Amino acid sequence: MAKIPVATGRVVIEAVTPQVDGGRYPAKRVIDESVVIEADVFGDGHDAIGALLRSRKTGSRRWQETRMTSAGNDRWRAELTPDSLGVWQYEIEGWQDHFATWLEGLGKKVAAEQDVSVDLLIGTEMVTAASTRARGKSARLLRKHAATIGDVGLDLAERLEVAFSEELTEGMDSTPERSQATRSRRFEMIVDRELAGFSTWYELFPRSWSVGAGRHGAFADVAKQLSYVADLGFDVLYLPPIHPIGTTFRKGANNALESGPDDPGVPWAIGSAEGGHTAIHPELGTIDDFRALRDAAAAQGIEIALDVAFQCSPDHPWVTEHPEWFRHRPDGSIQYAENPPKKYQDIFPLDFETSDPKGLWLALKDVFDHWIGEGIKIFRVDNPHTKAFAFWEWVIAEIRREHPEVILLSEAFTRPKVMHHLAKIGFTQSYTYFAWRNTRQELIEYMSDLAAVEDFFRPNFWPNTPDILTQQLQTGGRAMFISRYVLAATLSSNCGIYGPAYELMEHKPLSSGSEEYRNSEKYQIREWDLDAAGSIAPVISRVNKARREHPALQRTHNLRFHATDNDRLICYSKRAVADLILVVVNLDPDYEQAGFVDLDIDALGVDPAHQYQVHDLLTDRRYLWQGTRNYVQLDPAGIPAHVFAVRKRARSEQSYDHFV
Amino acid sequence: MAKIPVATGRVVIEAVTPQVDGGRYPAKRVIDESVVIEADVFGDGHDAIGALLRSRKTGSRRWQETRMTSAGNDRWRAELTPDSLGVWQYEIEGWQDHFATWLEGLGKKVAAEQDVSVDLLIGTEMVTAASTRARGKSARLLRKHAATIGDVGLDLAERLEVAFSEELTEGMDSTPERSQATRSRRFEMIVDRELAGFSTWYELFPRSWSVGAGRHGAFADVAKQLSYVADLGFDVLYLPPIHPIGTTFRKGANNALESGPDDPGVPWAIGSAEGGHTAIHPELGTIDDFRALRDAAAAQGIEIALDVAFQCSPDHPWVTEHPEWFRHRPDGSIQYAENPPKKYQDIFPLDFETSDPKGLWLALKDVFDHWIGEGIKIFRVDNPHTKAFAFWEWVIAEIRREHPEVILLSEAFTRPKVMHHLAKIGFTQSYTYFAWRNTRQELIEYMSDLAAVEDFFRPNFWPNTPDILTQQLQTGGRAMFISRYVLAATLSSNCGIYGPAYELMEHKPLSSGSEEYRNSEKYQIREWDLDAAGSIAPVISRVNKARREHPALQRTHNLRFHATDNDRLICYSKRAVADLILVVVNLDPDYEQAGFVDLDIDALGVDPAHQYQVHDLLTDRRYLWQGTRNYVQLDPAGIPAHVFAVRKRARSEQSYDHFV
Repeated sequence: MAKIPVATGRVVIEAVTPQVDGGRYPAKRVIDESVVIEADVFGDGHDAIGALLRSRKTGSRRWQETRMTSAGNDRWRAELTPDSLGVWQYEIEGWQDHFATWLEGLGKKVAAEQDVSVDLLIGTEMVTAASTRARGKSARLLRKHAATIGDVGLDLAERLEVAFSEELTEGMDSTPERSQATRSRRFEMIVDRELAGFSTWYELFPRSWSVGAGRHGAFADVAKQLSYVADLGFDVLYLPPIHPIGTTFRKGANNALESGPDDPGVPWAIGSAEGGHTAIHPELGTIDDFRALRDAAAAQGIEIALDVAFQCSPDHPWVTEHPEWFRHRPDGSIQYAENPPKKYQDIFPLDFETSDPKGLWLALKDVFDHWIGEGIKIFRVDNPHTKAFAFWEWVIAEIRREHPEVILLSEAFTRPKVMHHLAKIGFTQSYTYFAWRNTRQELIEYMSDLAAVEDFFRPNFWPNTPDILTQQLQTGGRAMFISRYVLAATLSSNCGIYGPAYELMEHKPLSSGSEEYRNSEKYQIREWDLDAAGSIAPVISRVNKARREHPALQRTHNLRFHATDNDRLICYSKRAVADLILVVVNLDPDYEQAGFVDLDIDALGVDPAHQYQVHDLLTDRRYLWQGTRNYVQLDPAGIPAHVFAVRKRARSEQSYDHFV
Repeated sequence: MAKIPVATGRVVIEAVTPQVDGGRYPAKRVIDESVVIEADVFGDGHDAIGALLRSRKTGSRRWQETRMTSAGNDRWRAELTPDSLGVWQYEIEGWQDHFATWLEGLGKKVAAEQDVSVDLLIGTEMVTAASTRARGKSARLLRKHAATIGDVGLDLAERLEVAFSEELTEGMDSTPERSQATRSRRFEMIVDRELAGFSTWYELFPRSWSVGAGRHGAFADVAKQLSYVADLGFDVLYLPPIHPIGTTFRKGANNALESGPDDPGVPWAIGSAEGGHTAIHPELGTIDDFRALRDAAAAQGIEIALDVAFQCSPDHPWVTEHPEWFRHRPDGSIQYAENPPKKYQDIFPLDFETSDPKGLWLALKDVFDHWIGEGIKIFRVDNPHTKAFAFWEWVIAEIRREHPEVILLSEAFTRPKVMHHLAKIGFTQSYTYFAWRNTRQELIEYMSDLAAVEDFFRPNFWPNTPDILTQQLQTGGRAMFISRYVLAATLSSNCGIYGPAYELMEHKPLSSGSEEYRNSEKYQIREWDLDAAGSIAPVISRVNKARREHPALQRTHNLRFHATDNDRLICYSKRAVADLILVVVNLDPDYEQAGFVDLDIDALGVDPAHQYQVHDLLTDRRYLWQGTRNYVQLDPAGIPAHVFAVRKRARSEQSYDHFV
């Protein structure tokens, strides 16, 4: 016969949120933001329940205990505001609160004018027991109350007054009988810095940024033009790999198999005699130039993000120093990357089934450590899904133990479950399918898919990358470039573009049906006219200003869609306490679209009986709206989107306040 | 630094279904029914995946291994058909299938006319390695194939033919390289007998069944009238507690505080000088009478279910033999049941915080063991939610270890999470809120709630019980009694009634607003005229016949609702392979309701281009329908429901086959 589990507590704790896969992986949150933690807590029978949240920063010896409050239907809730970066732990404790049960019953019996003399003796026993758990003044007070309640010589009214006193309830609540309490498993939560939840990325190839044409651009050139990036409103400057580029099987312009002597090569073909993942491509400058760029960026409020692409050109030092980190074929050659029938002979993947996993993993960690040592705290990780999951889980935990401020963006454009898994095992942010979600229905469904994984997967929306020039951008013209950035930047609090290709509306594909750029910077140096007349930089700048100034745009899942009677118009709002933003975008790049938007005005909290002001942050125009149904008209020849700040009427007819 | 987990497999297994709370509790299934088991299985990179389901009856030393097949989007699937009662275990194993990856790449390279000489050498290595894992003939075959593929002296076509041969793929699939495989946690599944999933219950108070009036009815009286129950079509006969009834604080008719000498008492006030939970109330008969009833029932295809109510009258032997199993008050008295200000002085609850939990738990288990020893395999457990969860989890596992055929019905009318938890910890079936779900919308929502917990919670729908005479039944008349039974019996595969109160349409409440019966059998002996003219027994009999003859009605969650243009009409279908049932019920007991039903005909699989026959199993009338939209008209004065068997047209115009 199985052992009788007689010591088991009578309370059950289930469905703790947030949690990821039953607690196997940590949830993700941002510092200084309140986290609501809930659980189902219930016991057998009808006794009252007590529950508390225990939380601490991992490593801290002291648990913070917060009483949970009932949210109805056996759900209990408490809030926690993590005030330091790193891994936090939390667990729930629940117990049957015999005192609260007794007090409630006593009230009902008194109301029914029943004899409560024995009940008062039961209460006396409970309060006396609590006094032995308490200390000092609390203990003395409980002893005094126990004596009063149990004193048959006293007036009944006096004894009941003490029984029902707030002082007694507080005293009992502060020393609950928890010896039979049930405790949930321990859950974890990654607490990131603010930038993990709200960031605006700009990707550029420094080699195309030379001041004065005909030269290989360098860090110093970028440093001189940082104000351009800052004026656009970006706070992360992401550089493709800055390391020496291999020459063996180097690709030419437009991915040509043969390259000429002047072809600069692909930055992702990392490694040459000049070094590997910790070296700098000489034509970009020295380590001092790099540090100068980093510091100049910081002075403008911009952080540098580096690309971590764990693969090697055939010329990478590791190929000769550590041949065991690569897969060898029966003919003795090293296995290059391939996706049959395609061959990538300029790239050797690392072999995570190597005979020396420890050596490989530590070397890869050293790459992060090196750049963290150079003050870099943001990494865009290239194709993480082609490296072992276990490696990422290990290396990210190792990095973040000492540097919880580090942010890692997962560049995995692959199947959804694989992308989600990379987020579960530690990536801070993730690229998404946003580039291929275009219609109203596609966007609404995709935002709903992302909301389902919000506890661990932070989307970063990019309308383009050096690898992705969508059909939409190829054919949609200026209106499409604007609308896709407005969508990216207002649907997701993390977003980015690859520029200047984006703001200069570079849109020619390598070939028909391809999503590759023609004359891509991946293979050649380009010259960009940042001052070109048609640049949409001013619009991007205004969108990013709206993001900086409006907390509602600094979160992703505070989103609500509203109906429109024209399915080329998409309408949604975001709210953060007093800040309310309403966005309407014309998804048609060719024709003016007009129609009515039907606002879910109760959800917005707008008073339908009064007018409210919608102030377009892109055009600075203001409109007076009322009720749920309002007309919009958006012309792709102008700005094909509204980003409205919604303001309720203030005291005078002329002034409008922030909406509360 | 954390230890480098270099041995971790590269494949991830997540989201295994069925599972309950991440595997903490077993799922529930029925013997000889196929169970679909699925999991997300994926690795890093783009390698092909192999996955298998391992399953066994707990205790068996041999695992059955079944290869899983891809269901798309990284989901893998296998089926398992448990062929014995008890607890089954299952787990998933997944690995990267290098051979399959290689074979796919080889195919693409050959198609692109690339050189594959090195690829063939790689294949040779893999097949040779597999031959060392295989045995006997398989090993010899693999060795032969490896030699052919690797033989540079042979014609390329010949080597490729072997590489792509089905024989080689089968050989490799039967000895996959699993040394780096990932294995999921182990999940469990309770396999019940068929009756757990499909049962039709009839509750009666034997004391009211005397043949010849004015006498306390006994088991022998019930035995004589079993054909009545059998003709109604019930297969479980549930008896309220059959034990001696206490006299202290015995309640009189209609729950009167005082009882007279002739009042029989409440069967749930268990225990007197004549014995407790293992004794039989003398007026019902002897143990031999009980056995005779049990055997007579079995002969008619009916199983006896007993009531297990773990509480004691003040006269129960345990009160003196084991005072420590009860809670004592400071004045020395035993705490009776109360729900302030209500007092139930005739009932002493057992104290699960007793100082002798082991003694108490074993004594309660002995009660089950005693009646199992008397051949009883079905128990309706009274108020399980007022006893410790840990006790139920222990005792049910103990009972079922030796008697996996035992079925326990949880009578917990309490908050949903508590009801669900009792199902998780082992109850086979559960009472539900069905009695209080009346409108179309309420019923649709409730069935959806139940579908969400179908892996562990098996509903049993009762339109009435001795404690529940709903407002609907009080006022709805004959049409309501019929429609509520049709709903119960066709929405849920497990259902029951408390009779003869139900079929005789007993509907007078104790008082206005009360759900208690007036002159309830709980407190007094009643006389029932089973042959009363107005009895709805014939309709119940027809409904139960339809249930017995139609597999579609023997499951619960094969349900689909269809639209109607009159919200007093509810329409739904159930399908089990070739059997298709369509139900339409008029929810209005007062007025005829007519309208169109809009069938989701694609989901039904009916051919909209041809007529199909709907055969009403309640009236035996047949109608020819076509397409999605068909007219119905249901009069509460007649039978206010259709239970249609749907048949497609067979060869001749006159005959209709089962729908396939």
